[in-house]
Amino acid sequence: MNALDRDYPNKFIVLVMHRVESLTGKVGLPPGTLVHVGAKDGKSCRIKYMEFSPDYFNEIDGTSIADIPAETREGSVVWINVDGLQDVETIRSIGERFNIHQLLLEDVLNTYHRPKFDEFEDQVFMTLKMIGLSEDASSIVKEHVSIIHGDGWVISFQEMSGDLFEPLRQRLRDNVGIVRTRKAGYYFYRLADLIVDNYYYVTEHLDEQLDELEAEVTSDPDKEARISIQRIKSAVTDFRKSVFPLREAVFQSIRSEHDLMQEIADIYLKDLNDHLTYILETVDSQREQTANILDLYLSGISFKMNQVMQVLTIIATIFIPLTFIAGIYGMNFAYMPELQWKYGYFYVLGGMGLVLIGMIIYFRNKKWL
Amino acid sequence: MNALDRDYPNKFIVLVMHRVESLTGKVGLPPGTLVHVGAKDGKSCRIKYMEFSPDYFNEIDGTSIADIPAETREGSVVWINVDGLQDVETIRSIGERFNIHQLLLEDVLNTYHRPKFDEFEDQVFMTLKMIGLSEDASSIVKEHVSIIHGDGWVISFQEMSGDLFEPLRQRLRDNVGIVRTRKAGYYFYRLADLIVDNYYYVTEHLDEQLDELEAEVTSDPDKEARISIQRIKSAVTDFRKSVFPLREAVFQSIRSEHDLMQEIADIYLKDLNDHLTYILETVDSQREQTANILDLYLSGISFKMNQVMQVLTIIATIFIPLTFIAGIYGMNFAYMPELQWKYGYFYVLGGMGLVLIGMIIYFRNKKWL
Amino acid sequence: MNALDRDYPNKFIVLVMHRVESLTGKVGLPPGTLVHVGAKDGKSCRIKYMEFSPDYFNEIDGTSIADIPAETREGSVVWINVDGLQDVETIRSIGERFNIHQLLLEDVLNTYHRPKFDEFEDQVFMTLKMIGLSEDASSIVKEHVSIIHGDGWVISFQEMSGDLFEPLRQRLRDNVGIVRTRKAGYYFYRLADLIVDNYYYVTEHLDEQLDELEAEVTSDPDKEARISIQRIKSAVTDFRKSVFPLREAVFQSIRSEHDLMQEIADIYLKDLNDHLTYILETVDSQREQTANILDLYLSGISFKMNQVMQVLTIIATIFIPLTFIAGIYGMNFAYMPELQWKYGYFYVLGGMGLVLIGMIIYFRNKKWL
Amino acid sequence: MNALDRDYPNKFIVLVMHRVESLTGKVGLPPGTLVHVGAKDGKSCRIKYMEFSPDYFNEIDGTSIADIPAETREGSVVWINVDGLQDVETIRSIGERFNIHQLLLEDVLNTYHRPKFDEFEDQVFMTLKMIGLSEDASSIVKEHVSIIHGDGWVISFQEMSGDLFEPLRQRLRDNVGIVRTRKAGYYFYRLADLIVDNYYYVTEHLDEQLDELEAEVTSDPDKEARISIQRIKSAVTDFRKSVFPLREAVFQSIRSEHDLMQEIADIYLKDLNDHLTYILETVDSQREQTANILDLYLSGISFKMNQVMQVLTIIATIFIPLTFIAGIYGMNFAYMPELQWKYGYFYVLGGMGLVLIGMIIYFRNKKWL
Amino acid sequence: MNALDRDYPNKFIVLVMHRVESLTGKVGLPPGTLVHVGAKDGKSCRIKYMEFSPDYFNEIDGTSIADIPAETREGSVVWINVDGLQDVETIRSIGERFNIHQLLLEDVLNTYHRPKFDEFEDQVFMTLKMIGLSEDASSIVKEHVSIIHGDGWVISFQEMSGDLFEPLRQRLRDNVGIVRTRKAGYYFYRLADLIVDNYYYVTEHLDEQLDELEAEVTSDPDKEARISIQRIKSAVTDFRKSVFPLREAVFQSIRSEHDLMQEIADIYLKDLNDHLTYILETVDSQREQTANILDLYLSGISFKMNQVMQVLTIIATIFIPLTFIAGIYGMNFAYMPELQWKYGYFYVLGGMGLVLIGMIIYFRNKKWL
Repeated sequence: MNALDRDYPNKFIVLVMHRVESLTGKVGLPPGTLVHVGAKDGKSCRIKYMEFSPDYFNEIDGTSIADIPAETREGSVVWINVDGLQDVETIRSIGERFNIHQLLLEDVLNTYHRPKFDEFEDQVFMTLKMIGLSEDASSIVKEHVSIIHGDGWVISFQEMSGDLFEPLRQRLRDNVGIVRTRKAGYYFYRLADLIVDNYYYVTEHLDEQLDELEAEVTSDPDKEARISIQRIKSAVTDFRKSVFPLREAVFQSIRSEHDLMQEIADIYLKDLNDHLTYILETVDSQREQTANILDLYLSGISFKMNQVMQVLTIIATIFIPLTFIAGIYGMNFAYMPELQWKYGYFYVLGGMGLVLIGMIIYFRNKKWL
Repeated sequence: MNALDRDYPNKFIVLVMHRVESLTGKVGLPPGTLVHVGAKDGKSCRIKYMEFSPDYFNEIDGTSIADIPAETREGSVVWINVDGLQDVETIRSIGERFNIHQLLLEDVLNTYHRPKFDEFEDQVFMTLKMIGLSEDASSIVKEHVSIIHGDGWVISFQEMSGDLFEPLRQRLRDNVGIVRTRKAGYYFYRLADLIVDNYYYVTEHLDEQLDELEAEVTSDPDKEARISIQRIKSAVTDFRKSVFPLREAVFQSIRSEHDLMQEIADIYLKDLNDHLTYILETVDSQREQTANILDLYLSGISFKMNQVMQVLTIIATIFIPLTFIAGIYGMNFAYMPELQWKYGYFYVLGGMGLVLIGMIIYFRNKKWL
Repeated sequence: MNALDRDYPNKFIVLVMHRVESLTGKVGLPPGTLVHVGAKDGKSCRIKYMEFSPDYFNEIDGTSIADIPAETREGSVVWINVDGLQDVETIRSIGERFNIHQLLLEDVLNTYHRPKFDEFEDQVFMTLKMIGLSEDASSIVKEHVSIIHGDGWVISFQEMSGDLFEPLRQRLRDNVGIVRTRKAGYYFYRLADLIVDNYYYVTEHLDEQLDELEAEVTSDPDKEARISIQRIKSAVTDFRKSVFPLREAVFQSIRSEHDLMQEIADIYLKDLNDHLTYILETVDSQREQTANILDLYLSGISFKMNQVMQVLTIIATIFIPLTFIAGIYGMNFAYMPELQWKYGYFYVLGGMGLVLIGMIIYFRNKKWL
Repeated sequence: MNALDRDYPNKFIVLVMHRVESLTGKVGLPPGTLVHVGAKDGKSCRIKYMEFSPDYFNEIDGTSIADIPAETREGSVVWINVDGLQDVETIRSIGERFNIHQLLLEDVLNTYHRPKFDEFEDQVFMTLKMIGLSEDASSIVKEHVSIIHGDGWVISFQEMSGDLFEPLRQRLRDNVGIVRTRKAGYYFYRLADLIVDNYYYVTEHLDEQLDELEAEVTSDPDKEARISIQRIKSAVTDFRKSVFPLREAVFQSIRSEHDLMQEIADIYLKDLNDHLTYILETVDSQREQTANILDLYLSGISFKMNQVMQVLTIIATIFIPLTFIAGIYGMNFAYMPELQWKYGYFYVLGGMGLVLIGMIIYFRNKKWL
Repeated sequence: MNALDRDYPNKFIVLVMHRVESLTGKVGLPPGTLVHVGAKDGKSCRIKYMEFSPDYFNEIDGTSIADIPAETREGSVVWINVDGLQDVETIRSIGERFNIHQLLLEDVLNTYHRPKFDEFEDQVFMTLKMIGLSEDASSIVKEHVSIIHGDGWVISFQEMSGDLFEPLRQRLRDNVGIVRTRKAGYYFYRLADLIVDNYYYVTEHLDEQLDELEAEVTSDPDKEARISIQRIKSAVTDFRKSVFPLREAVFQSIRSEHDLMQEIADIYLKDLNDHLTYILETVDSQREQTANILDLYLSGISFKMNQVMQVLTIIATIFIPLTFIAGIYGMNFAYMPELQWKYGYFYVLGGMGLVLIGMIIYFRNKKWL
């Protein structure tokens, strides 16, 4: 392998998802009923068909099952990528063509389904979440991706079109290194690996936001910080919710004794598992960091309030008694002997000065000044 | 399966339950004593009897065991639904007719029983909770449902009458698709599935309430919010208390090697388990969200108090010293030289202005203004 | 079974326990030394001896081993109940008579021992806590109960005399139903069951107290509430401490393959386990509810303080500046031109009115009014 | 067994430990290097040698290996107790004499080692902590104790000299009951048991302190309470840190199939385990109680602050407006018509009275008075 | 072994690490691509080659694979230490020379990789973190270290050059004791042991900082404390993140049945595990201590605020009413009878004195004075 063996440019994939239909649209339907659950924007599917062997390469772009060749060459690998899950009929026809179980197709279409690994007689299946940021980078968005692997073929379903798999496609077109010599199972693993690799962007983005927020909260715990903390807390929790069951799924795939899983070297799956464990540990320390920032915020608020109170108390405690003394000699009684003293005024000013000094000593003792 | 294969309309089932008798009514009775524990409203049972095979269908509505045919046709499936658990005698007679174990009937009648799966020599049993909202949508209500499955028959007991199973009944009447060709075990699964599907409404309702509450608490953390948080926290906890043991029960049913469980395809039970896991994860993140909202509320209160204190401190700190100065020159001493100065008044006003400017600079430095 | 098959009236057992000797009285003694650890009030044991078979019944009340017949009839069951654990000699002699292991007797006498199940060559043993309320219903009291089951006999040791087992005794006297036909193992189970059933009273009592407290805290979080929360928290924790290890013990008894445990139908033990699981779940949600009430209390205090501060701030912020203005014109400078204006007074009053209106507008914007 | 069978008087063992050398003194040394880690006070070892069988008894006090007989009588048990771990050479020579593994001696000398059980080909080893109070009873002190059991002998190493084992020694001297007839394994168990029994003092002491603290915090949450809570929290945590791994070690000793462990009746080890479980549960509820006391403290502070604020607010809210009114009529305007009214003064006093009454009604409504 | 058997002086290793390249630089690369992830400072590798047997010793310092002898003597052990991971080509060539798996080299270069143990057909691998303090001792820095052990050789890769292994090197040069007679596996263990031993410095440093911080927070909870708490919390969490997976890795190495692991006496690995368990328990109690300090800080803030409020309230409550009285008699009404009384002034002063005494009695009752 050499430096050319890079799959795709390091740019960050931005996904935008609108939640237009909820999961309750599926409630009460008999098991196996195919209904698309999730964002709808009226677009049809986009199918990318690739068939290749070390010395053969065929790529077709289409929108329906009719665009795909009915036969494949002996020994070549087929990779079909389907962008968009709203055209239920096309997905059903692909399912029929490759003999995919109805309940499995249901999981493909249910964009709320949690990541899982499943194995059937002649197919293995993994569903996971592609994760990115919303356009204003303020929240996490998830795209539902399913990968099915049968004898000699891999089919990937993406909720939206994205260019995450493009670099692998380019490498296949360019026939870089040994990329076309692998069995279909390798690509099953590779697609999952590309998605998981992308998680690193999310963790780094969250890391940056957390560090920024921590700095902000340390210096000035204001009202916006309070809302930012909640927002980032949700994002971290949301992210974890996708990563945790995926690691479980990868665990299962490692333990799987299915023939099709034997095509994938164990060390690859363990590597994938290592990545997910690293990400999960990072997410968990981010959760902890968020909690710390909240503590920092609350203690900051408390501390600030304490300071405010001290200033108020110092001012009030000094001047209220002095004002009282002034008030005494502002009374209009006919007979108030001090008022007639020549230096009465100066005595009183002196007395006030003494009170002031006493107060200042008291506050110094209390360490308020 | 086609689009007609929908079991029932998506309307939300509202259950209303009054707790009139507590569990202590049963304390001290020997095991196996049949006593109805739960809401009493004087109504008798309502029995819906259905016997069907692909080419036969018989439906009977009744109120006692006498209304049910003593014999069933070879190869047909019998589904008996009992609404209402207060008529202990009728339930006992059904138990005797189908040879149901006394302790199992006790669980049917004990509406406080936690969800569980149990297997006997010739019967399997699942008890679970139908969950809805109270009429004013402010709390979760639960209905105790038990499903018993023996050779060729399924009996479901509902605490109250509801229309949750009606769509399945209609499909059986209409003989839609292959609905009548299944073995009895399928209906055992199907009834549990219908109840679990309904949980999605509850999670969505809670989601909406939480989002609303979060928005409210973010903008204005008032007194009502504080009580709403507690109310929704209880609802989420209460819901979880029903879902968690049910998943355990479904786990057990998957592991069960009972002959009667072999009638149900494993993939259905795993699907049910997937749904419950999804719901449980959702409930758990709702718990977390509730905790977040409480944090948000408390930090909101703290922040607001801080602001109030700042305003008070600024006003008091500015005017108390100024008032003191005014108080000084309000004293009635016979000899106060400044009082006689021509511009004494204006000097004092100027001094006050300087104090004011000093204060403002001080507060600007403190970032209080 | 019929309506007469009720074991005892539903009245609540009130236990009163005084802790007079602590566990350290036993420290350093060699294992197997019999010392009574717990409440002492100088009373001797009270022994209730019952021997019965379907057609034979003999009941003896005594205070020492001498009162018990040395021989028992073939095929009859013997149940000995010992009230009071302070007469160590009598208990030792019973132990010798029935060949009970010294370490086991030690557990009988150690009233601080946690619930456990143990099995010996020819005996099985369970110790558990009878739980009630103190006389003023403000705290949980526990009584240490041990039940030993050997071939053909059951011996129960109670720390204090109580009437919890009386209903079963009455049923045995009256020979109700099949009550005398059971093997000794059934009574071993039955006594444990009677004690566990009684736990429902405790959970209900706690439920009521929690609901009351929640209502109180919601409307008015006062000083008493704060102490009540702690008190009920302790009670719930204390209760849990007895229930949790008991469930463990019952688990062990279900898994036990001891011959003597085969006399008890598995379904009975599982039923007992179900009850304990229900109670434990209830206790756990009570713990959570207590935590919620504390949150509610604290947020209530915060909210109330916030309101108090607002009132103070509004009053102070309005009147302090106005008082300052009044102070200005209360100064006695010889030359203060405004004082001589004809309408000076009214101008100042007007100015004060404008300040007042400005303040009110400001507070309205802040939503403090 | 009779009343004379008590091992030692119930007085409380006070241990004092000074931490003079830290664990880092050992960093980087090759495994098996013997270095004493812990308190150093320049004292040499004190060796107590005992050899006994039912009809033979020999006791020797010494300070080095030379004082110990080179040969032991057939069938007798040898118990060597070493007080003080600073004389590394003596301990090494004992190790060589009894063929103790170097790494095991390292654990004997490392007073920071956590409790553990280990087994070697011909020896079993347990290290645990003797726990007492510091002289002013304000904190927990730990003494590192190791017990090694080989064929026919037991060696105990204590960090400091204490009289905890003295009662057993006295019983051996007096040949009480069957005390000299046991195998060496019994004494291995018995020494551990004596140490664990002593833990009851610690739990009771903590219980008393917690109850005192709770009472104090309930009535008056002052500054000292805040520091006491932290201090006791540390003590409980510290205690738990010794008990938890010890229970693990005892578990392992129960599961051990080592020949030497067969000399100890299983029931004794289970009894030891029961004690540790009881202590651990007690410690855990003490942790919880500490948390409760902290909550109580914080809510007490909050409540007190609330009351303080109410008093301030009531006083300020009543008198600030009244003072303002007085300020108005203290102004020196030339033309202020009210001042000339005959009853102006009384009108104003009446107006002030009305304001006062209005305020009081307002506070009554707010439940502040 | 004797006193000379010390591996290295006890000075503390200070590591400084700059994070210049993030983990995302690796995203999307095919598995097995070698990229250095971590700090870059343009330095090349430094290779320390050692070959030794009891009677042979050869040491070479080099910078590339060319400097290493191509052949090794029969029966000698080779230890290669590589400082610096930026020269990917050199590391690749070493990998090729010793037949190291590509994915394993990837883990060597990925300085963000979590500690793990892995075994291959003819190699075992452990990666762990060398941990030190940043130069200003304010934070934890980690250095990525990997140790690979094959037949007769050990290769260690360090992220930066450090002298942590130097003492072992010196002992090898000096041929101290039996140090050159061990098999290669011993050095695999020994290097890991040296790194783990160094952790004790970190725990002690944290201990000291925590004790200092606790003392500071107890006496004066100021603003800096609040930030110190967060900083130390992060350090503890960060440290734990390295230790926890390492213990897991050591566990795996103990369970490993790989031939190469048989070269290491089990007791050494268990000893290593004991150390890590001790460190982990210490870290966990440090986490707890940090939480306690935060509680202490917050309760300190609350308490201080309470005191501030009390002072303010006492002053304001005493003087505001008195000032009001003075204000009354400062009014300029034409007819105010008291003003003309001879002793009016003194009556008023007396009345004020009575009010003052009343206030003081009130505050004494409230325990505010």
